[in-house]
Order: sequence, then structure tokens, then C-alpha cells
Amino acid sequence: MKCKRCTARAEVQLRAHNVAFCRPCYLFFFRRQVERTIAAHRMLAPTERVLVAVSGGKDSLALWDVLVELGYDTAGLYVGLGIGDYSDASRVKVEAFAGARGLPLRIVTLEDEAGGLAVPSVAGATRRPPCSAYGTMKRHYYDAAALEGGFDVLATGHNLDDEAARLLGNVLRWQTDYLARQRPVLQPSHPKFVRKVKPLFLLGEYETAVYAFMRGIDYVVEECPNAVGATQLVYKDALDRLEHASPGTKLGFVKEFARKAQATFASAEPPDARACAGCGMPSYGELCSFCNLVREVETKRARAAARVSA
Amino acid sequence: MKCKRCTARAEVQLRAHNVAFCRPCYLFFFRRQVERTIAAHRMLAPTERVLVAVSGGKDSLALWDVLVELGYDTAGLYVGLGIGDYSDASRVKVEAFAGARGLPLRIVTLEDEAGGLAVPSVAGATRRPPCSAYGTMKRHYYDAAALEGGFDVLATGHNLDDEAARLLGNVLRWQTDYLARQRPVLQPSHPKFVRKVKPLFLLGEYETAVYAFMRGIDYVVEECPNAVGATQLVYKDALDRLEHASPGTKLGFVKEFARKAQATFASAEPPDARACAGCGMPSYGELCSFCNLVREVETKRARAAARVSA
Repeated sequence: MKCKRCTARAEVQLRAHNVAFCRPCYLFFFRRQVERTIAAHRMLAPTERVLVAVSGGKDSLALWDVLVELGYDTAGLYVGLGIGDYSDASRVKVEAFAGARGLPLRIVTLEDEAGGLAVPSVAGATRRPPCSAYGTMKRHYYDAAALEGGFDVLATGHNLDDEAARLLGNVLRWQTDYLARQRPVLQPSHPKFVRKVKPLFLLGEYETAVYAFMRGIDYVVEECPNAVGATQLVYKDALDRLEHASPGTKLGFVKEFARKAQATFASAEPPDARACAGCGMPSYGELCSFCNLVREVETKRARAAARVSA
Repeated sequence: MKCKRCTARAEVQLRAHNVAFCRPCYLFFFRRQVERTIAAHRMLAPTERVLVAVSGGKDSLALWDVLVELGYDTAGLYVGLGIGDYSDASRVKVEAFAGARGLPLRIVTLEDEAGGLAVPSVAGATRRPPCSAYGTMKRHYYDAAALEGGFDVLATGHNLDDEAARLLGNVLRWQTDYLARQRPVLQPSHPKFVRKVKPLFLLGEYETAVYAFMRGIDYVVEECPNAVGATQLVYKDALDRLEHASPGTKLGFVKEFARKAQATFASAEPPDARACAGCGMPSYGELCSFCNLVREVETKRARAAARVSA
């Protein structure tokens, strides 16, 4: 098979796009796809300071790499979840990536924050699923770090497979409030929040993996141990089968949703936020969801300690 | 396992509803589900004359059986497609069903109509997929038979699996115009059309099969030979896997769409129809889509004949 751009021997074939590329042309293609997505959705302006949320996986490191290549002013943000070996390995990869390129990196470690809020202990104390506890904490630290560092925008590495799986889950239950908020660009609902963007939302898992491999990026290959059996993986499997039967299915599903259907779900603006009595970040109740979670953990731990000493 | 209603030994288990029933209670459950669907969506009034489209398969014969049991004034309509042995076998089952119960049955045979419009020859002449040619012709004969017989409403046997697969296909491409029309009740857009209803749209393939079996209904088990490899079957397979991982997925998908999401897609009323220059039925162009199809077949046949004699 030949490269579509230069007719050299192709190294990668993309069935969804019905093209094949050699290595240099694939890197060109990938970067141009990201550039076009950023432009089409007005994700970033050239002078803005971008905080890139990096997990140590292929998607977020590929995103950081592309944004640097495209000339954006970036810094990385790593939130350590305290999930044993998995978190240790992730942090090593992120630090190595940033160190080798001389890129600024901020690190937040959950077990060092607010009384040891590592994901496993929070999930255990509150009986919430780990991913739910993580989501609430992650959002808080992303917002806090972006505010503190004076960043204009937060970029995350969500890829097409992530977005398609999330969209399928939201559609199967017709969760219209979630559908109203599933966008590649989320404008801040408060001056203390920043814009949130997903520049890889139209590029598949396979495409980001090939990019990371070709660029020699060393990333954590293992899935998070908490992901085993997650509903998200059932949706990904169903979508993989649909994609196999009809290449381009995922791209059409996510792209057409953003283009045609999302607006029909977009509801009224969110209510005005006030300052959280705990952390001072914007909140729709007395406490924000992060501080509510922290209070819940503290209450349960105090009760457990009282039972032990009684 | 015990029957949920009477605690006798259960014969059928429904994972989506998380219940099990003995035979008499299952028949009671099934009929009550249909009754509730009819009432909730105002599908039928007690005195209306109902034309039931029957194919010879389990769904449409189960529907006719339930409607008779519920006391509706019904007649069957069988449209013979001319698909060889499959059509012959279907017709025999339908005639046997109606004959044994003394129910009125209308039969339209495509090869006897308008110059031999059997599905295989129309599909061959126009190079349309058979199911597309069939859809256009079927709709025409359903409308014409309902008008001619003075019926108030046309009922079809579409089940939950059919509706879920169709919904998934429409959602994966975000075909908002199709989503706007995917409803369990379609009000007539013209006085010559009748209301169209799908009383089984919340009952699964397995549930109608069990009902047909328990009622001793003899139906065509084979799928239409044209269905092999159809995209619809890929959607059904994906949905079966999602249902297996989380029972009730299909029911939630279709039910919540009707309840919450369908209205967001419902567009403006269709434009005013005029009389088709060919058949006199309502049409949005000079010819309706059926007469357009007939003209296309005739033109292509005439050209082919001219080539042969030249």
C-alpha cells in the first residue's frame, strides 16, 4: 500500500478515513487534524497559556506533544491518584516526558492533599465507584491549578473512542442534561473557571497510539486497574464492532452529534454560582461537590474511629 | 423459579423486566403490556376499525391475535412480495391463521399489480436494495388498502428490537429528520392517509416469540432471505450485547427516546400534499414515490427491451 500524500510505502492505514500514510506524512496528517479541530471549534488562540492535563497515557502525552509542536505555550498538570503501582508508573512517565523536553510540569498528589484523599481510600470510605470519586476530585484540582497558575484554558486528551463511548452511554439512557454538556469546548460558567477543550476528540485511540509510537513517546500502556468491567468498556466494545462492520461509524457519530444534534439538547445557562464555603471555588450549593466529598470522607472516618475506640 | 403473579412454577423469565411468569400469567402480562401501550399513546379508540399489516412472522400475527383478544374490530392485510418460496410460505401461514379464526383478510400480490412489480425484479431493474424498493411499495399498498376499506388506523407488528435497531442506526448518523418521525403513533398528514400505530414497540422479539408459541400461532420462522448481511442485523447484534451486559438497555433506549428526546427532534409539520398524477394518493411532488418507482422500472425495462431488439 502507498502513502496517499507522497506515494512512498505506507506504514499506517486508517480505515475510517480510507487512507494510508508513510511515517512523515502520518505525523503531518495527525498534526493537521488537531490544528483543524482547534480552528473549527475555536479551542485555542495563539497567545493563550494552555494547561494540559496529563495522565501518563498515550492520549494526553500525544496531545501535549502536538500542542508544543504547534507552538502553543503549555504546561503539564499531573494529578496523582494514589492507586498504588499504577500511579507511581504514570508519574514516572510524565516526569520523564516533561524532563526530556524541558517542559514545565505541575504535580498534585491526592494523598498529600486535604488529609490523604487518595482515590482508593475515598472510594472505600464513601462506597462510591472509584471513577466517580476520581472525577469529582480531578475536576477540582484541574480548576484550582488553572486558576492558581493564571492559565487561559485547560486541554484534556479525550479521544474519539472516549467521546463515542460516552455519547453512546448518554444516548442509550437519553440523559438529555449530559447530552447538553457533551461538547468539545466548554466555556467557563464563572470567572474563576477556565475554558476546557478536547483537541483530540475526532482522533481515535489507534491514531493517537500510532502518533505516540512514531514520536517515540514512552507512555503507560496498562489500563487503570479500576477500569476492568467498567460499563464504558462495554460501550467501546459495541462501538468497535459497529466500526468494524462500517468504518467511520465512530467519527460520524461524534462529529455529526457536535454538528447537528448537540444544540437541540443545549438547555438554558446554568444558575449563577457562588463561592464554596470550603475552598472558595465557584459552587451551586453551600459547598462545592469536592468539599462535599471531603466532608463525607471526614465524617465517615470520624464515625469509624469512634466505633473502634468505643 | 416462581411466577411473580401466582407463585406457580414459572415458564418464562424476562431479564429486562426482572420477572418470571407461568403460562397463563405471561399471556395476561403480555396483553396488559399491549393494552397499556395503546392507552398511554392513544393508539386506538374502542370503536375504530383497525387494519393489521401481517407478514406471516411472529410479531404481526401475535399483534393481530392480541388485538382480537382485546376486542378490536380488525382485518388483516397481507402484501405478497414475490420473493419465491419465502413469500409462498408466508402467505400460507397468514391464510391459515385468518381462516382458523374466521378473520377477514385482504391480500395484495405485487406480481399481479401494475405490471409485475415483485420485489426481486424491481430491485434488479432499479439497482435499489430490495428492502428499499419493498418499503416504498409496501407503504403505498398499506395506504391504498386502508383508504379503500374505510379503516381508521393501520397497525404494524414492529417490536422493541426493530425499534431499538432503527433508533441506533438513526442516532449513529444523527439523522435528525428520521428521528423526528420515529414515533409509535404517526398521525395522518393528509385526509387520505390513516393513523399508523406500533402497539408492540415496547415488547421484545423474545417476548412476542414466547406469546406466539404459547398461543399456538404457526408462523414463518425463517428471516427474509434479503435480510442476510443487512446493517439492521449489525445494530441488533450490538444491542443484544449491550442488553446482555445490562438487561433493560433496549427498553430504556426506546422508551426514554419516546418520552424525553423525540420531541426535541420533531420539526415543523410536513408541507401540504397534493394528489399524485399517477395514483391519486397524497404526494409531495408531481408523482408519489411509489409511482416514481413504477415509472423508473418501466423506463428501464423499455430501454432493456430496445437494446435486446436492436
